[in-house]
Amino acid sequence: MTIRFDLTFVQGLTVAEKAELVSGKNFWFTAENKGQQIPKLMMTDGPSGLRKQASSADALGLNQSVEAVCFPSAALTASSFNVDMLYELGENLGTAARVEDVDVLLGPGVNMKRTPLAGRNFEYFSEDPYLAGELGSAYVKGVQSQGVGVSVKHFAANNRENQRFTSSSNVDERALREIYLAAFEKIVKQAHPATLMCSYNAINGVLNSQNYRLLTQILRNEWGFEGLVMSDWGAVADNIAALKAGLDLEMPGNGNYSSKRIVEAVSTGDLDEARLDTAALRVLKLVETYHVNATAVHDYDKEQQHEFAKRAAEDSIVLLKNKGAVLPIKTKDSIAIIGELADKPRYQGGGSSHVNAHQLVSPLDAAKAGTQVVTYAQGYRLAEANADDKLVAEAVNLAHNVDKVIMFAGVPEAMESEGFDKTTFDLPANQTSLISKLSEANTNLIIVLQNGSAVSMPWKNQVEAIVETYLAGEAVGEATWHILTGVVNPSGKLAETFPVRIEDNPTFGTFNASPEAENYHEGIYVGYRYYDLKHKRVNFPFGYGLSYTQFTYHDLSVTSDETQVQMSFIISNTGEVAGKETAQIYVQNLASRVEVPEQELRRFVKVALNPGESRQIKLSLNRRCFAWYNDNDAKWQVDNGDYCIMVGSSSRDIRLEKVVAVRLGSPLTSKIGPDTYLSEIINRPELQEALQQSGLKDILDQVVTGNSSEILKNMPFRASIMFGASPTQMKTFLKLIEAS
Amino acid sequence: MTIRFDLTFVQGLTVAEKAELVSGKNFWFTAENKGQQIPKLMMTDGPSGLRKQASSADALGLNQSVEAVCFPSAALTASSFNVDMLYELGENLGTAARVEDVDVLLGPGVNMKRTPLAGRNFEYFSEDPYLAGELGSAYVKGVQSQGVGVSVKHFAANNRENQRFTSSSNVDERALREIYLAAFEKIVKQAHPATLMCSYNAINGVLNSQNYRLLTQILRNEWGFEGLVMSDWGAVADNIAALKAGLDLEMPGNGNYSSKRIVEAVSTGDLDEARLDTAALRVLKLVETYHVNATAVHDYDKEQQHEFAKRAAEDSIVLLKNKGAVLPIKTKDSIAIIGELADKPRYQGGGSSHVNAHQLVSPLDAAKAGTQVVTYAQGYRLAEANADDKLVAEAVNLAHNVDKVIMFAGVPEAMESEGFDKTTFDLPANQTSLISKLSEANTNLIIVLQNGSAVSMPWKNQVEAIVETYLAGEAVGEATWHILTGVVNPSGKLAETFPVRIEDNPTFGTFNASPEAENYHEGIYVGYRYYDLKHKRVNFPFGYGLSYTQFTYHDLSVTSDETQVQMSFIISNTGEVAGKETAQIYVQNLASRVEVPEQELRRFVKVALNPGESRQIKLSLNRRCFAWYNDNDAKWQVDNGDYCIMVGSSSRDIRLEKVVAVRLGSPLTSKIGPDTYLSEIINRPELQEALQQSGLKDILDQVVTGNSSEILKNMPFRASIMFGASPTQMKTFLKLIEAS
Repeated sequence: MTIRFDLTFVQGLTVAEKAELVSGKNFWFTAENKGQQIPKLMMTDGPSGLRKQASSADALGLNQSVEAVCFPSAALTASSFNVDMLYELGENLGTAARVEDVDVLLGPGVNMKRTPLAGRNFEYFSEDPYLAGELGSAYVKGVQSQGVGVSVKHFAANNRENQRFTSSSNVDERALREIYLAAFEKIVKQAHPATLMCSYNAINGVLNSQNYRLLTQILRNEWGFEGLVMSDWGAVADNIAALKAGLDLEMPGNGNYSSKRIVEAVSTGDLDEARLDTAALRVLKLVETYHVNATAVHDYDKEQQHEFAKRAAEDSIVLLKNKGAVLPIKTKDSIAIIGELADKPRYQGGGSSHVNAHQLVSPLDAAKAGTQVVTYAQGYRLAEANADDKLVAEAVNLAHNVDKVIMFAGVPEAMESEGFDKTTFDLPANQTSLISKLSEANTNLIIVLQNGSAVSMPWKNQVEAIVETYLAGEAVGEATWHILTGVVNPSGKLAETFPVRIEDNPTFGTFNASPEAENYHEGIYVGYRYYDLKHKRVNFPFGYGLSYTQFTYHDLSVTSDETQVQMSFIISNTGEVAGKETAQIYVQNLASRVEVPEQELRRFVKVALNPGESRQIKLSLNRRCFAWYNDNDAKWQVDNGDYCIMVGSSSRDIRLEKVVAVRLGSPLTSKIGPDTYLSEIINRPELQEALQQSGLKDILDQVVTGNSSEILKNMPFRASIMFGASPTQMKTFLKLIEAS
Repeated sequence: MTIRFDLTFVQGLTVAEKAELVSGKNFWFTAENKGQQIPKLMMTDGPSGLRKQASSADALGLNQSVEAVCFPSAALTASSFNVDMLYELGENLGTAARVEDVDVLLGPGVNMKRTPLAGRNFEYFSEDPYLAGELGSAYVKGVQSQGVGVSVKHFAANNRENQRFTSSSNVDERALREIYLAAFEKIVKQAHPATLMCSYNAINGVLNSQNYRLLTQILRNEWGFEGLVMSDWGAVADNIAALKAGLDLEMPGNGNYSSKRIVEAVSTGDLDEARLDTAALRVLKLVETYHVNATAVHDYDKEQQHEFAKRAAEDSIVLLKNKGAVLPIKTKDSIAIIGELADKPRYQGGGSSHVNAHQLVSPLDAAKAGTQVVTYAQGYRLAEANADDKLVAEAVNLAHNVDKVIMFAGVPEAMESEGFDKTTFDLPANQTSLISKLSEANTNLIIVLQNGSAVSMPWKNQVEAIVETYLAGEAVGEATWHILTGVVNPSGKLAETFPVRIEDNPTFGTFNASPEAENYHEGIYVGYRYYDLKHKRVNFPFGYGLSYTQFTYHDLSVTSDETQVQMSFIISNTGEVAGKETAQIYVQNLASRVEVPEQELRRFVKVALNPGESRQIKLSLNRRCFAWYNDNDAKWQVDNGDYCIMVGSSSRDIRLEKVVAVRLGSPLTSKIGPDTYLSEIINRPELQEALQQSGLKDILDQVVTGNSSEILKNMPFRASIMFGASPTQMKTFLKLIEAS
């Protein structure tokens, strides 16, 4: 039977039937209507693995869900800088969902990381909107290739957990467009997601679920989004206002409270029935595409997915420090593994992304299965912040007697989860003190981190190596061990900056300062854009990550015409082992007359190279790579002029650069007028005759003699009157140059 | 003859006559109309001394003016924290103006200092609006007590010189009110200035001279300003638009170009003649009050004014460092004076505040007149940045052979003036290198600074003493020498923060980044409000200054009722010599639910105490001391609750503090509703019965059990639906508590 839902069908439904469709049935389902042959549609968390709850449903990952493979969280997968891997992750998730009869998977999360303290950073990709948009697009395409819809979340500017249901994100329009909306915009335009999930918060005082500008003007009218917008669970305060603003589906269901309100609003004329029809049709289209017409799949190979979870982690784990090549661990090395996290790893986020993992392999399990001689000590209690002298002594004792010490450190889930923000980005005190003690006991100290977001590293110089594994999914042990032992050459790069002190972050002092609003003082200067602007030293910059081999960059060529900028360069693996490198293309705008970041990521490419192998990379940069959002004219503007194209191994390790004249936009016309500054008029040869004819030349010559060039730069033509020019002379001059 | 200009008189003038009145005649005069018996009115720069130009007029201090006493610039006088002294300064300026037939003196400048790089900082008081407002009010009252009008400038948010004629100051409303307008508001309300001078720049895209909201809605309708608004010289781009916005007088004159336009605009109906009448009447009222009815004064004592200039500087110079009591200089000390600035001091600002000084006394002159044995070496050339080996050798040689070395250092005028912004806040390289060399030659190195704005001090730890004299006026030499020798005990306190690095300033990276607009990212966090918020170490904090004696603070008492907060405390001079101390009262808002600074200056008082003497200070704090500007409701809001009252010797040297419950405003009502967060509902005993009755108690108890308290804090009542509450139960609960 082929069902085709269309407007005629919708118009044949009663108002009550339509109202039920747009109101959600219960926690995970839309309304079923047997009489009209409308089946229910199932949605399920989460972005890093299926969280399909059996019976007792909740929004915060409290209750058990069906078993599924737990993939690495977005904080880690983003570090892969690998769109193909993200597509494959999507495929895996889509397959699992399809088998479990889940029609829409509630992910990915693509919000920006403004501060290491934001509680939900672990499920977001990056501080950079281009990276988040590219990775998110690949993920969405992957999921949807399996006949499962996605819900890209949380739309938008949902950057703190505290008071998240009511807090207003007060952000200027340019930052909104360039930073907070850009990833959503790219995904909508490139990947055509089935749904978007509207977030709890308000933007500039208007609750997102009731924000017509956001949900209709920008999302649909500007971007052409054709999917459905659902609410985050409980984000709707007034469902009639939400419908009017462009929300299509309120989640979760609340009995028939919402649908009754809709029936009443339509009957009083408060709500236009046509708007209800549109929303209902979008729900039906979703049901049609992802439920009715979905091809049933009955089984999937969880072992294979576990293997993929391992590969995904291996492709993403970031080697931050490796002094004296202490890594990889050699077969002959005797090893002490320290830390409760080695045994009971933190491998996934809390809240809606919590998965009932198929098969967790801890780092300690993986190490014990390896060929090295391995001993273990707990070292600290994850549930406590105070050091336990006995555990410390045991760990230090072990450390004395081995070649290398690997300490697993990280942030306990009690300190970092959906639902609240962090108050510190330091590791617990018992871990930092243990690091110091171990570093005294053994000079080959390797720290492996498990955490959702950037952490401080006052101990950075006390250790030989640092490996960032974030929340690495159920294959955390195998992947970590493969990286540590060199079975896999690390190739992850940080998708976020690791600042030295929390005080260095732009939100310091104002993040969560007001329960009612979050003021985005930093505007477009988020992440590396801020640290660069303010010349901040950082522990590890955006895009940074080491390898067990070395790469060189050479032969950059950049050409520019009216349609694009094309570039090529060569990367060579000059080391001893095979490895992968992510080349990052940053652009610096030297042309525009507005504030611009020092550099912005515009392209990246990850290549695998054998020792001695070279690869030429060719890339093209389109108009958007040079654009800034002009709020006054409500448009993406490209100013013709010079741009510096930089190729880096990280944002602070630029290997090649070239300035190119870009012609993809409009010239920055500086039409001579009353507001033109005198230095420009005096310095342009073609204007000298008009100056002479109008009688202004002598006057301006005197000005030049009597003033410093600095002052002239700041004196506009209309102010020449103060040097004795007459309005008639000034008019004459402007007419003369107008005519010429 | 008593002339009385009134509306009837104005309405008897022709449109052309009125148009001439509001358009300015020439550089310094309004239009004269002999037929109507309207005399011309003369205006003259500048805020620190009369700059009455004889013939050839200009706006930038290029041409000679009549001789007048040059008083210290505002950057220095602000450091006095002495309203009585500022009043006296005003009196002196007013007297000089009256004698010179100047009717309106173009000052004071009360803009805020956002960055040490702003070119015109030297003529502004402070980074703090309360201090600027208090000092500015006293100055205005002093000038006007002599029958001379003032022009408080530059209204408003005129915080950079680059592109100052066109650049838009993009600033949020709260910062505009609390920081950038507050000093103007206070002066308008307290001191009733004759005129305000509207600045060149735009605010949020609207040129100030055409800004109806600024010039009419805020200035007149809200603040009740009854004086005249004139333009800064050349600030008018469209004089019709300016008149409509509320500008009364365009300056300077431009032939009859502007008046013709007005006649035309009235004739076409584009400009309402009533608006022209109002502006013309304001000009006439100014003529009447400050010219026609002014009492002629024929002479004044320049020697006496010079004495006052000296006292003003002595009351203001700031002793920043005095290690091992190297200062004051003893009679027996042999002294080397180093630095061209000792001989050719920088003692006044460039541009419109430039004065043809009556009698300059250089520090070298003053020193030679003293009792100490003094030698001098030039040390560096002010006109150059490179060190001159010969001069250096000579200076170092001198330094080797004396008890103490006093080096005069500072910023040359070529680097710091009206008309352009600075690009560095470092001293010239030849001076900093000389400081190092001298510090090696003699451990008793004293630095005396002459500069318009905060400078960097990488050499801070190499010297024993630092004396900040800013631009100290024509008595610079005598005042400086009196401070150095202890004839006067220093009592100045910094009216601005001295940051360690320019990178620490909130505007770093964005100041002057766009030629078209200046974005005030930092909002209300200007000056110490920013350094405090961001936990920045500074070289010297706001309010800081040493004395040759010591003061202790004790016995703070604070009481609070519905009309005011009253406080008292005692200051004692516990040192060996007489001295003055400025106690500063800062308030920290612990009550409001919005971003607030760590502390804000709300009162200050300067007392002179003999050794062993104590004085009780009583102060009262009014409503405004606890207010923040609520942009949404367009009002100054005071939230009842706790405030910390702090008494400090500087902003970072708080000696006494007390938390007080303030009841001058409104309670921060937290009416229980759908948006109330669950932790509050669960924790309020009086709500438990309603929870029980509505059937919600069990549900919420489960929530409490299953969730961390952090999560509950961020879950509003309306989200209880996600834990199984029904809309009916929730409605019942809200009704029950409404009824109770």
